[in-house]
Amino acid sequence: MFDKNYLLPPDALERILAAISEGHLSTERLKIEECYGYIIASDVISSEDLPQFYRSTVDGYALNSRDTFGAKENSPAYITVKHEVFMGVAPDFGIKIGEASKIPTGGMLPKGADAVLMLEHAQTVSDDMIEVMRPVAPNENVIKRGEDIKKDETVLTKGHRLRAQDIGALAGIGITAIDVFRKPVVSIISTGDEIVPANNPLKSGQVRDINSFTLSGLISEHGGIPVKKGIFKDDYDVIKNAMEGALQDSDMVLISGGTSAGTKDMTAEIINDIAKIYGGAGVLFHGVSLKPGKPMIGGVVNNKPILGLPGHPAAIVVCFDLFIKPVMEKLSGLNPKKKFAKTITAKMAKNIASQAGREDHIRVYLEEKDGKLIAVPVLGKSGLITTLVKADGIVVIPQNKLGLETGEDVEVKLF
Amino acid sequence: MFDKNYLLPPDALERILAAISEGHLSTERLKIEECYGYIIASDVISSEDLPQFYRSTVDGYALNSRDTFGAKENSPAYITVKHEVFMGVAPDFGIKIGEASKIPTGGMLPKGADAVLMLEHAQTVSDDMIEVMRPVAPNENVIKRGEDIKKDETVLTKGHRLRAQDIGALAGIGITAIDVFRKPVVSIISTGDEIVPANNPLKSGQVRDINSFTLSGLISEHGGIPVKKGIFKDDYDVIKNAMEGALQDSDMVLISGGTSAGTKDMTAEIINDIAKIYGGAGVLFHGVSLKPGKPMIGGVVNNKPILGLPGHPAAIVVCFDLFIKPVMEKLSGLNPKKKFAKTITAKMAKNIASQAGREDHIRVYLEEKDGKLIAVPVLGKSGLITTLVKADGIVVIPQNKLGLETGEDVEVKLF
Repeated sequence: MFDKNYLLPPDALERILAAISEGHLSTERLKIEECYGYIIASDVISSEDLPQFYRSTVDGYALNSRDTFGAKENSPAYITVKHEVFMGVAPDFGIKIGEASKIPTGGMLPKGADAVLMLEHAQTVSDDMIEVMRPVAPNENVIKRGEDIKKDETVLTKGHRLRAQDIGALAGIGITAIDVFRKPVVSIISTGDEIVPANNPLKSGQVRDINSFTLSGLISEHGGIPVKKGIFKDDYDVIKNAMEGALQDSDMVLISGGTSAGTKDMTAEIINDIAKIYGGAGVLFHGVSLKPGKPMIGGVVNNKPILGLPGHPAAIVVCFDLFIKPVMEKLSGLNPKKKFAKTITAKMAKNIASQAGREDHIRVYLEEKDGKLIAVPVLGKSGLITTLVKADGIVVIPQNKLGLETGEDVEVKLF
Repeated sequence: MFDKNYLLPPDALERILAAISEGHLSTERLKIEECYGYIIASDVISSEDLPQFYRSTVDGYALNSRDTFGAKENSPAYITVKHEVFMGVAPDFGIKIGEASKIPTGGMLPKGADAVLMLEHAQTVSDDMIEVMRPVAPNENVIKRGEDIKKDETVLTKGHRLRAQDIGALAGIGITAIDVFRKPVVSIISTGDEIVPANNPLKSGQVRDINSFTLSGLISEHGGIPVKKGIFKDDYDVIKNAMEGALQDSDMVLISGGTSAGTKDMTAEIINDIAKIYGGAGVLFHGVSLKPGKPMIGGVVNNKPILGLPGHPAAIVVCFDLFIKPVMEKLSGLNPKKKFAKTITAKMAKNIASQAGREDHIRVYLEEKDGKLIAVPVLGKSGLITTLVKADGIVVIPQNKLGLETGEDVEVKLF
């Protein structure tokens, strides 16, 4: 059933990635509070130290650590308490040998102090005298100037996707706007003479457009801007026009559906025909050793990826994960060094057979049984959207494996 | 060091969850394309079948399966090809015994047909005659009427967070707007006399506001609406006013910072004082057996959770995961049955000691070494934001474990 000339998904993906230049999206300058999830377009270098002063990490007494050396229970050090440090204010006093000043967590160490004794390690002897029963090391309970971030240090590198804490770090060094790659605009062209919009009444033989809703959600969730171009007739000129239009105003084009025998060939033909006009390799592969998702088409026109997607809802989700997401990431300039799939380990609930030579993506739901997490295959054709609704994630059977056995540990890629 | 009376994080969380009523947020009706990530407010029941007709899953011939029973290579069945099914159109003809009609993938079966023979399993004998070398079972290569979703079937249940494929399923049954719980509005009150806004010049002894940026990002990412209330002086009346204002216009209040000894007590005092005015249990716990995050305060006023967060950036992220996220989820009406942490298994790069009786949350970065994933602890005080920037996730050492050993398998909760 599977054409031996079909590529495996990673090889098919590699063809598209090789054909588009990296991070060719333009950049934009945004306020950091708008940057969550964006990819940084250039290294961020700090122009200042964080913090800019020696800072206490505890409530206690700022002092000179040498005054406490050798202090023990039966031979405590006696230190005179003078002054008090207040939050947010640079002390206008210094500490001399034998002196300490009260300091709150986050307070700035006065001159002459190199460590902070925790409140609970000091015994108050009198209003202005404490007893110290253990030595304090230099810099103990202190964050040094520049210990978090040093001036001229590279804080974040080009290609990094900004998480909440990264934005926090930028705020910490006074950077309130940065250059990021703009989000890729991904057009969705729905085809199929049987497809009608979700809000239309159905005539016999028609079905509603499901895939553009699934695709839009996945694209947004993974840092892209989906643009639904609408539903187009299975007609060469109509789809060619739609594809040319989408190529003008987006960074990537998805054609969903067109699953009838004639249309399948037509999508590939149109990709090749417009490649002759606008340049590019045209179709790079047509068909992949993958289930669901076999009829997938990948191409490039005018340096923009065009993917022809099978109409089955389950294939849409698998093809998104294997092709659309990594292509969007390359367009977005994401540094591919650090990518970890979010998975969870579970035990297969039953045997699943798989054909050698192709990747099988099995939808599963998870349930706990005797304290163990069990992955239960969701039965049903890949044309059924409910197989995805019932599923919590996907288990991949690689091409060189003939199946999975009951009780076998599997990694579930969670939705 | 750790107070034996301190609660463990799950027990502390339970106190807050028990004190707020479930899903008390109001609902709103949204278009489905706006609903990604929202929680459904009532069960969704289909008013129609999906699909509404018997549908072919392949390109081939619609026929009566009985005509193929017993067909084999040396004794094929001969079937007359009449008519052709077109996409999106109900056939205006029927199939008689001994007849078949061409049908595309997704096409509607004509009357009299109960199965589809794949194109590649038919031999064309003449323009209107095919040879069938193997039997086709009833319903083979067919999606039956209602096989995906049946009329009156519950498609999605109250409390489910809508994923891309769920929205697709709603579109598929013609539902274009649904009732969802509105997103919880979470106010962030930043306190600390040393804190200045990110865009301000720094005076000696001052630091910029980091935590409100980290918190805002985490809240948005997990389905809430963050509202930064600003930075407030460490003063009873000022913070009490800010807290009362935040209680009016939000569903949950976070107070970040106020780490100085005096303020720590003040936050708890204010929570108790406003509980006397507006009702509610006030402070439910003050201090948790957790590192980082020990000084955490949890309380409830007027059925709204108020959390006092330690000022250390690393504590913010840990407390978000352990407290803020689950409380937001309860407010949002999320059904807690199905929650799986997105983790990845790795081997510890080195020994890490932990104190019995408390939960230790260790920041780690991941690297591949000899094909294995290694979790390397990020060294540095929890007051340093860069420990989070360098980290890919967190490893939890439970309270009954004295540490982790080199090479030990750990589950890394990915950021």
